[in-house]
Amino acid sequence: MKYIIIGAVAGGASTAARLRRLDEHAEIIIFERGAYISYANCGLPYYIGNVITERNKLFVQTAAAFNTRFNIDVRVRTEVISIDAEHKTITATNLETGETYREVYDKLVLSPGAEPLRPPIPGINNEGIFTLRNVTDTDTIKKFVTTTKAKKAIVVGAGFIGLEMAENFHHLGMDVSVVEMGNQILAPVDYPIAAIVQQHMRSKGIYLHLNTAVTGFSKENDILKVTLKNGNQLEADIVILSIGVRPDTKLAVSANLTLGPANGIWVNEFMQTSNKDIYAVGDAIEFTNPITQQSMITYLAGPANKQGRICANNIVLGNKQSYKGAINNAIVKVFDMTVGTAGTAAKHLAAANIPYVVSTTHNGSHAGYYPNAKQMSIQIAFSPADGRLYSAQIAGYEGVDKRLDILAGIIKNNGTIEDLMEFEHAYAPPYSSAKDPVNMAGFVADNIMQKRLSVFYWNETTNIPPTALLIDVRRPDEFEKGNIQHAINIPVDELRNRLNEIPTNTPIYIYCEAGLRGYLAHRILKQNGFNEVFNLSGGYYLWQSCTAEQQLLDM
Amino acid sequence: MKYIIIGAVAGGASTAARLRRLDEHAEIIIFERGAYISYANCGLPYYIGNVITERNKLFVQTAAAFNTRFNIDVRVRTEVISIDAEHKTITATNLETGETYREVYDKLVLSPGAEPLRPPIPGINNEGIFTLRNVTDTDTIKKFVTTTKAKKAIVVGAGFIGLEMAENFHHLGMDVSVVEMGNQILAPVDYPIAAIVQQHMRSKGIYLHLNTAVTGFSKENDILKVTLKNGNQLEADIVILSIGVRPDTKLAVSANLTLGPANGIWVNEFMQTSNKDIYAVGDAIEFTNPITQQSMITYLAGPANKQGRICANNIVLGNKQSYKGAINNAIVKVFDMTVGTAGTAAKHLAAANIPYVVSTTHNGSHAGYYPNAKQMSIQIAFSPADGRLYSAQIAGYEGVDKRLDILAGIIKNNGTIEDLMEFEHAYAPPYSSAKDPVNMAGFVADNIMQKRLSVFYWNETTNIPPTALLIDVRRPDEFEKGNIQHAINIPVDELRNRLNEIPTNTPIYIYCEAGLRGYLAHRILKQNGFNEVFNLSGGYYLWQSCTAEQQLLDM
Ligand SMILES: Cc1cc2nc3c(=O)[nH]c(=O)nc-3n(C[C@H](O)[C@H](O)[C@H](O)COP(=O)(O)OP(=O)(O)OC[C@H]3O[C@@H](n4cnc5c(N)ncnc54)[C@H](O)[C@@H]3O)c2cc1C
Ligand SMILES: Cc1cc2nc3c(=O)[nH]c(=O)nc-3n(C[C@H](O)[C@H](O)[C@H](O)COP(=O)(O)OP(=O)(O)OC[C@H]3O[C@@H](n4cnc5c(N)ncnc54)[C@H](O)[C@@H]3O)c2cc1C
Ligand SMILES: CC(C)(COP(=O)(O)OP(=O)(O)OC[C@H]1O[C@@H](n2cnc3c(N)ncnc32)[C@H](O)[C@@H]1OP(=O)(O)O)[C@@H](O)C(=O)NCCC(=O)NCCS
Ligand SMILES: CC(C)(COP(=O)(O)OP(=O)(O)OC[C@H]1O[C@@H](n2cnc3c(N)ncnc32)[C@H](O)[C@@H]1OP(=O)(O)O)[C@@H](O)C(=O)NCCC(=O)NCCS
Repeated sequence: MKYIIIGAVAGGASTAARLRRLDEHAEIIIFERGAYISYANCGLPYYIGNVITERNKLFVQTAAAFNTRFNIDVRVRTEVISIDAEHKTITATNLETGETYREVYDKLVLSPGAEPLRPPIPGINNEGIFTLRNVTDTDTIKKFVTTTKAKKAIVVGAGFIGLEMAENFHHLGMDVSVVEMGNQILAPVDYPIAAIVQQHMRSKGIYLHLNTAVTGFSKENDILKVTLKNGNQLEADIVILSIGVRPDTKLAVSANLTLGPANGIWVNEFMQTSNKDIYAVGDAIEFTNPITQQSMITYLAGPANKQGRICANNIVLGNKQSYKGAINNAIVKVFDMTVGTAGTAAKHLAAANIPYVVSTTHNGSHAGYYPNAKQMSIQIAFSPADGRLYSAQIAGYEGVDKRLDILAGIIKNNGTIEDLMEFEHAYAPPYSSAKDPVNMAGFVADNIMQKRLSVFYWNETTNIPPTALLIDVRRPDEFEKGNIQHAINIPVDELRNRLNEIPTNTPIYIYCEAGLRGYLAHRILKQNGFNEVFNLSGGYYLWQSCTAEQQLLDM
Repeated sequence: MKYIIIGAVAGGASTAARLRRLDEHAEIIIFERGAYISYANCGLPYYIGNVITERNKLFVQTAAAFNTRFNIDVRVRTEVISIDAEHKTITATNLETGETYREVYDKLVLSPGAEPLRPPIPGINNEGIFTLRNVTDTDTIKKFVTTTKAKKAIVVGAGFIGLEMAENFHHLGMDVSVVEMGNQILAPVDYPIAAIVQQHMRSKGIYLHLNTAVTGFSKENDILKVTLKNGNQLEADIVILSIGVRPDTKLAVSANLTLGPANGIWVNEFMQTSNKDIYAVGDAIEFTNPITQQSMITYLAGPANKQGRICANNIVLGNKQSYKGAINNAIVKVFDMTVGTAGTAAKHLAAANIPYVVSTTHNGSHAGYYPNAKQMSIQIAFSPADGRLYSAQIAGYEGVDKRLDILAGIIKNNGTIEDLMEFEHAYAPPYSSAKDPVNMAGFVADNIMQKRLSVFYWNETTNIPPTALLIDVRRPDEFEKGNIQHAINIPVDELRNRLNEIPTNTPIYIYCEAGLRGYLAHRILKQNGFNEVFNLSGGYYLWQSCTAEQQLLDM
């Protein structure tokens, strides 16, 4: 058997290694256009930021070591330029020598990845405007920063990689602005969770320019001028364009492989393309999202690695192992915070016409009585019909990654909010509370499902009818520090004795800091003849973050 | 409706609070023998060790605040001394005044917890020998340590609380010995994982006396002498007895409630005892373990809290919500390490005659190229028939709690090792690797299931027949630093060229540091005509920890 693999990083190298373990005697050739294989794409921003100090650490394998260990013919600096699917051959060009040659294959695997978008904005080819995808890009950026002693950076695009670059430039002591066309950072995340992180970034001194696009670049006296759609002009020594990627499908097209509706390479559940002898994995493929049932592309290393193993299994053992699709469980460190998302955001559920309910809770990362507990905010979206969990998004500090992975496991399993309530976590004071934040998210959602709790949302406070009553049930000292306009203050612990102050024939909107006391007040009122009672989901804390960000947007 | 609850901490207070939220107008009385309600049992060792510095923090609620917030009649220092189930009354004694009185109930909830064992060992009543269960015990111990300026502590019993006490005494600058009757610390955990933690404790200067029981105590000149079964005598200023607890079933017995085979209060899935008007939750009940199907007692705060909520639901809404049992997901910090277990340990599977396979893997807490990744060791046990995951045990540093909770979720769901392989984790360099340790554990188990990998275990190295070959496939420098007796060294990367050095007609045992390179060597050999090949599960690292601990035991 002769296997050829195109692309020697996450998906490709994983496929190659597993192929070898399954078939010691096959001939395996792996082609890589770049000079390096098996590198840590995900570590590149941290190497630029000197968080990773040794360049060597970026290479999980070198071509020589990979060859020695796996007896794989690794051809770096060699680009596959076309595929002749009919004759089962590929044509490759050695980029060092210019030599072009053919290789036949029995089975071919494509893992060409994705390429960063670089739209034809005027002036985009000025020196100092970079995209970041591979080691060469990294070396170039690092060298530019060092030699020009760049002090001011602009990151265009506030996605995961953009935020990592913003943090790493800041870590180098630079002055950093982020420009984002959307009205929030991190498009896969819903607004409230993004707002919390935006507040944190601003507190670290990052300038956020949201809701505005770059319309042009120019360069004067070594200084890049970045013109924004809102009329502003920013200056920078370096610009990173991080506005997204698109699947690299050139070869697939050359081989007449079917592309899907999302413009990625179409594969079946066995990672097999429309040609039975060609498989494909990684950023270049699209797959059915298990929640929306829509075809989508996942740009994540975990899925690419797993697909590689599945692909190799199916090639050697026959199509037996199905890939079940990714729910896009993704996470990023943003200074001291961690933010992550799994499943389908509320806004995307709305766009896909899937009915959902959202609930936000804030809880400690571990027991409050044990030192250094930090609050995290969990937003879940679930089906009002059967409680199925559609998504989880978390912003916080310690322990965010844990809760995200727990919730991702439940989402992937088609679990419901019952699974959140019942989740049996490991509890000792340094790790959690007797009720884990995951359980709490479940309890609150269950109360909503069982109609024991009616909620309203931060962006609905402005719609509260003038006839309604807005009650802040926090302590007076909390109320004094800041509250929502028109609210009156009745602390929850006084409520039972002050019911006579509240009219029964008007809707009552309640809030507290996080939501818990508001819920208790809600229970008291509902069982005392007040019929229309609503509690602010996420409480004053969420309202405040969202409102502060909204005001900055509106400015 | 009139609800009475006995015991006002984890299970009892949770039940009471939820009862109030479900039924604002019920009369709710909660009895507590001690002076405090709603305290953080789990924080007590850390308060003794001055990690938690404010005593106030131990109280999640006070009697007064609980009364104000929930309108619950809280009666502290009041012991319920009997239940008359026929007439639905309880008799209580006010421990301050000695007054004894009756209260009728519609529904009664028992959450009396468990009591520490204090066996009749000679001299056990000497001053300075304590058990730790509640705030009073804590105050007593803390006062004793402070006033006597205790320098030397002995902890008898190396369970979760015993280890926490050992660490906290050490944190106070004391000289700490742990005496344990079993041949390892942490009985719920299997030997290899315990061995790793034991090595860590010894490195911190804790003296471990395993495989020996305390046979007597005496006191001379204010110094406690602790005599061990192995003939040794230790000295101490203070002794903590932490050898286990038993469910407090006195009241249940007085009410003729059925006890179960594990001597806890029997309840059905609705937390209802054999008397339909009496429910029970927490440490005092027993429940069917979902893996072994045996009735067992869970001494954990998470389950107690959850049972409380379920119990309240069933009381107010009718028996609708089933409790599904606990898999005993438990965790403890041991100095810099974290160790945890979920599900049924291999040794307990063996005792229950459930066939299982064990696999141990070691992986980084996060990407190796990002600073401060730490290795963790995961041992899983699964069904050889269908891959069902029975247990997960982990010892390591950062990120152990995360993987334990992920695996616990899979165990609870009757998941299989396929779920481990497919687990879609959130990956960015500070949080994980492209293949999470959970995935890795799954891949290796899958290879074992698919008979693509045959393993042997650390305690089988002494049984390797003299005719067999033991190959260390690590690098020569690793081999030189220490190896297993009789091993020859053929680094995995040289193996393909040195096959002629290896006889084909003899069993071959392979090991490397963690297991990965051994597996690669195993694949190469198996596909080159070597039929009997075995790879050391957990590698040299696990072998070394276990062997070092075994040698100390045998001394
Ligand atoms: C800066 C950065 C940070 C990231 N951080 C994260 C993160 O934290 N978490 C996460 O999950 N994901 C992250 N990702 C995404 C992750 O790296 C990708 O999802 C993953 O690498 C995709 O694997 P792949 O094999 O499809 O593509 P790649 O890993 O990109 O590999 C494709 C390779 O194919 C080669 N190639 C393409 N065409 C040809 C050809 N015709 N001939 C020869 N070679 C060819 C390319 O040169 C490239 O090296 C990050 C990506 C970047 C760029
Ligand atoms: C030091 C320590 C550390 C721990 N650490 C952890 C940990 O890290 N993680 C974890 O999950 N679990 C831990 N636990 C266990 C956890 O605290 C228990 O599982 C949990 O508290 C059990 O809840 P419960 O309501 O059944 O009993 P308890 O919380 O013990 O409450 C029972 C209460 O009932 C009262 N009572 C009993 N009989 C009567 C009566 N007749 N009349 C009136 N009152 C009565 C008792 O005084 C007691 O206050 C720890 C326990 C201790 C002691
Ligand atoms: C490393 C790389 C070359 C692939 O190599 P790989 O051999 O498949 O992966 P790993 O080194 O992680 O090893 C996994 C294998 O070791 C096995 N293994 C791991 N620990 C083991 C142990 N203790 N005992 C036995 N086997 C073990 C696993 O079962 C798996 O083998 P399998 O797939 O045959 O079941 C490829 O993943 C790569 O290039 N990665 C870097 C690029 C990248 O992913 N970038 C994006 C993220 S930054
Ligand atoms: C605290 C204690 C008194 C019980 O109180 P509780 O009110 O049930 O628990 P919490 O304060 O954690 O609040 C949970 C409730 O708040 C609700 N809640 C939490 N966050 C919320 C939010 N943001 N919005 C709305 N509701 C919220 C939950 O839904 C839950 O209510 P429900 O059960 O009616 O669904 C009891 O658990 C206790 O005594 N604990 C300390 C003792 C102990 O557990 N010891 C062992 C461990 S150290």
